[in-house]
Amino acid sequence: MSHQSDLTNFIGAFVDELSKSGIKKVVVSPGSRSTPIAMLVKEHPHLETIVHIDERSAAFFALGIAKSTNEPVAILCTSGTAAANYFPAIAEAYYSRVPLLAITADRPHELRDVGAPQTMDQVNLYGKHVKWFVDMPLPEGSEEMARYAREICSRAIYTAKTRPFGPVHINFPLREPLIPDLKDPMKYSAGLKKRVQLSVGEKICGDEHFQMFAKEMPEKGVIVCGPMELSDEKFRKAIIRVAEVYGYPILADPLSNLRSGTREKEEIIDTYDAFLRVDHARQLLKPEVIIRFGAMPVSKSLLFYLQDHRDVPQYVIDGGQGWRDPAGSATQMIYCDEASFCLMLLKHHSNGSKRKTDWQRFWIEINNRVKKQLASITIEDLSEGKIAFYLNQLLPDQASLMVGNSMPIRDVDMYFHRTDQSIELLGNRGLNGIDGIVSTALGVSLSAKHPYLLIGDLSFYHDLNGLLLAKLYGLKLTIILLNNNGGGIFSMLPQAKEPAHFESLFGTPIHLTFEYGVRLYDGEYEKVESWSDFLEAMERAKKNEGLTVIEVFTNRKKNAELRRKMQEMISREIENWIELGK
Amino acid sequence: MSHQSDLTNFIGAFVDELSKSGIKKVVVSPGSRSTPIAMLVKEHPHLETIVHIDERSAAFFALGIAKSTNEPVAILCTSGTAAANYFPAIAEAYYSRVPLLAITADRPHELRDVGAPQTMDQVNLYGKHVKWFVDMPLPEGSEEMARYAREICSRAIYTAKTRPFGPVHINFPLREPLIPDLKDPMKYSAGLKKRVQLSVGEKICGDEHFQMFAKEMPEKGVIVCGPMELSDEKFRKAIIRVAEVYGYPILADPLSNLRSGTREKEEIIDTYDAFLRVDHARQLLKPEVIIRFGAMPVSKSLLFYLQDHRDVPQYVIDGGQGWRDPAGSATQMIYCDEASFCLMLLKHHSNGSKRKTDWQRFWIEINNRVKKQLASITIEDLSEGKIAFYLNQLLPDQASLMVGNSMPIRDVDMYFHRTDQSIELLGNRGLNGIDGIVSTALGVSLSAKHPYLLIGDLSFYHDLNGLLLAKLYGLKLTIILLNNNGGGIFSMLPQAKEPAHFESLFGTPIHLTFEYGVRLYDGEYEKVESWSDFLEAMERAKKNEGLTVIEVFTNRKKNAELRRKMQEMISREIENWIELGK
Repeated sequence: MSHQSDLTNFIGAFVDELSKSGIKKVVVSPGSRSTPIAMLVKEHPHLETIVHIDERSAAFFALGIAKSTNEPVAILCTSGTAAANYFPAIAEAYYSRVPLLAITADRPHELRDVGAPQTMDQVNLYGKHVKWFVDMPLPEGSEEMARYAREICSRAIYTAKTRPFGPVHINFPLREPLIPDLKDPMKYSAGLKKRVQLSVGEKICGDEHFQMFAKEMPEKGVIVCGPMELSDEKFRKAIIRVAEVYGYPILADPLSNLRSGTREKEEIIDTYDAFLRVDHARQLLKPEVIIRFGAMPVSKSLLFYLQDHRDVPQYVIDGGQGWRDPAGSATQMIYCDEASFCLMLLKHHSNGSKRKTDWQRFWIEINNRVKKQLASITIEDLSEGKIAFYLNQLLPDQASLMVGNSMPIRDVDMYFHRTDQSIELLGNRGLNGIDGIVSTALGVSLSAKHPYLLIGDLSFYHDLNGLLLAKLYGLKLTIILLNNNGGGIFSMLPQAKEPAHFESLFGTPIHLTFEYGVRLYDGEYEKVESWSDFLEAMERAKKNEGLTVIEVFTNRKKNAELRRKMQEMISREIENWIELGK
Repeated sequence: MSHQSDLTNFIGAFVDELSKSGIKKVVVSPGSRSTPIAMLVKEHPHLETIVHIDERSAAFFALGIAKSTNEPVAILCTSGTAAANYFPAIAEAYYSRVPLLAITADRPHELRDVGAPQTMDQVNLYGKHVKWFVDMPLPEGSEEMARYAREICSRAIYTAKTRPFGPVHINFPLREPLIPDLKDPMKYSAGLKKRVQLSVGEKICGDEHFQMFAKEMPEKGVIVCGPMELSDEKFRKAIIRVAEVYGYPILADPLSNLRSGTREKEEIIDTYDAFLRVDHARQLLKPEVIIRFGAMPVSKSLLFYLQDHRDVPQYVIDGGQGWRDPAGSATQMIYCDEASFCLMLLKHHSNGSKRKTDWQRFWIEINNRVKKQLASITIEDLSEGKIAFYLNQLLPDQASLMVGNSMPIRDVDMYFHRTDQSIELLGNRGLNGIDGIVSTALGVSLSAKHPYLLIGDLSFYHDLNGLLLAKLYGLKLTIILLNNNGGGIFSMLPQAKEPAHFESLFGTPIHLTFEYGVRLYDGEYEKVESWSDFLEAMERAKKNEGLTVIEVFTNRKKNAELRRKMQEMISREIENWIELGK
């Protein structure tokens, strides 16, 4: 067989298996060494190709698609720094458990480590931040090797989407010439079926565990729900039912998505970040058991709450078999599918009927009071908090809102409360980077009905390149860009108390307004300096089927001041109420 | 001792040693965890801090400074994806042997691998792509640990600048609170001297080697000079002298910087990329020995030349102890300081007087003839080749020209010929990525008298973020942006013969014109569509002390066509001449 038919056979089998194993989209960054894979992907009737020049943004874009669909997405690039640019998104995918398949082209062995151009050591390139790595052999034309290529592809995809979901990396050494046979590439793999099916059982703890768990459930329990990689309807229903039956409050991180479609569910507590900052409240709300699901919530005061109560049993339920305990407070790790765990708790409950406990009522009462206080932000003309507060009304039903890291996610945590609208909240909370957020949001936009992004200026700048895809593929996204000229979060941290170097090292104003940056990519640009501006811009954005960037000018110092005032007010409210209750 | 004094002592010792061991600049990307290091760096009287939000660009910026000064530069970032964003520049630094010191902040051990925010496994984060990695202990206040911090810092810097130069990585786990004592931070390390000095000997092969080498030098020798990490005057003079004494031609890659200040040195051959494409010429120019210095030159026809003559002795001299032989043609690796090697060759030459050999004259004759042909590009109105051809006249004396990868470096290879001007050429040829080029050029600009960058549109887009520093620090740089709307190099590759998917996978037009991108960063923008436009814009740029971007609109297809025509003409010329000579 010729070099070309060997190449086409081997790579063709791999590429065909991508499709057969469930990959629908391949995000390709152009390069020469990856030519045979790119061409055969492009030729494949069931694979959609999206081309992106910047590999860093490309990988985050794929992450966004995978995150919103919970299906693996492939990324393909050439050798050298191209592959290194994938690293931030790969690491984020690993820690936030998003299925990604990174395919990199490499030089053949005889060109490795001999100073050949664009050649780096790509074996185990991403270290421990992928679930599986395979350095492929050079293409061979035998049926046996086509079978092998299919098997690696299939295993890679299964691995990516077996819990804990995550990235895998396949590296392909390729020798020139790199052009596959495009006359009839499918003939090489026609008729070949996906060979191996994988069945993965659910992790289920049996009755014997639950006789213990259920028996140990005292009156004062607290459920904590953080960001979940599998936030399915089954779990959602089950956990709310558990809260009702056991009479527990659910402390729901915004990315648990339990604040949407649940306006009437008072047991879902959505202002704990504010009131758990009050030492007195943390003590008063001492639980007898804590049951935690998902990744660690964003709220730092919740972390303190968990740490304050290390003396009570704290269960961490994780079907993805992690060790999510940054508070160092867990007493029992439970590797069990989360929905099953809830159903078993319900099954083993003594009578299964709803109960309102004093304990739960106490949480609901505080939550309602604090929520009223937080609503006072609405009297401000324009602030970052007010925007977060009104988002649950301003966004259309079935909107998807990607939330940037640093301040946006914290504002959303504090101000985005339970709503009847169905609004999906997403974030990159694996590593909480400010990088790649624009691209992730654009990836999410592919499957979202009404895609939105809430982001700060530094983060928007960091991934400005991501906007290229909005232009080239006509993607729809409305970006609410909070421009406070720098890193707002630092004004809330102890660094702010050290005036020396604060602005230069932490405030870091970059003095950009982004009109030109948006126009570069043919987006609609809206400049907003008042609340009414903002409302109008949001309305106009709804009618735009492409990219809209609403740049809202806010003030870091004023934001910090407002937060402090708000917190003082809440502390007083709680102290007064506690005083009354005595 | 308090936590704060422990922190200040330990980090202060490390930071002070940065300065004592020769670091002058620290490029800081903002973050919380890195606070104590950033603050103490900022406080240090002899360290200059440059702040950059995008860690990817920040690391390339530092690479540019280090590349142009051959002195290590430190980069500092916080934990998580921030550190992952350094990866492309770190890998480039490793393969192009540029001294960099990457300092990353990390969570303390009790917060590692437990789902804490912004926490990834940073131990050996960059794998084999750093020369040395140290995971530091938590700060301790003892004198012994201050000594240790100094020693690690000193060793790291020595390691980065011991040949082969390269990046090192120091990771600092840090526990909150993160604020050091800024009242008098230097008191903690005042009086402490740099402890260890390192003396590194030169690699020198003794007389016994050279009795053999010099004896084996036949008449028909060829010297090849690729990009060198240490292109010092000593080597430059010595290699030219070797060529004169032995009567050998020097095939000089543009990044060898042997084409500058050497207009009269005819033995320096600067058009070999064009004529070695002619099979007949490669055979006719069969050498008896090849002596190679530096990294592999960009020219692919030179690679073929080396491979065609695997039967003759080929020496690769590398004081950096690599294995730079992608042609698989070396017969002898010689780990010896390059300048010393030349001096020894001269010492062992039979009489030491210059000789013009027929062999050398033959090369000079071809070179002159081909150069005349290449000059016919000057009759074009505007083309990428013509710009490269005239750069050696248009740039001011003592200019520094950073050259982008893909087509710019190839155009420069073909068209930038020997000149009397002193023009320093630089490129990122470790991994030849199109990423980070703008930032590298800005880094170079800090020490350059007249800094220029020649770059294509995809590469410019890729690192548009790099321009932020030009704005914030008022840096001077003139960018000649060749916008041919896509990846020009692919039109020269076999991929171009496959019309299916060519534009979508390889041509990849991004349809951007960069006026808005430049205005975003307050740069001067020049739009150029004719040769006279270009000349005027270049003149205006000389007067601008800040950023100028001259966007030159060219055409990929026309460029490829022109290259083909030029090559045909050169082939004919050579064949005719060979015919005549028979």
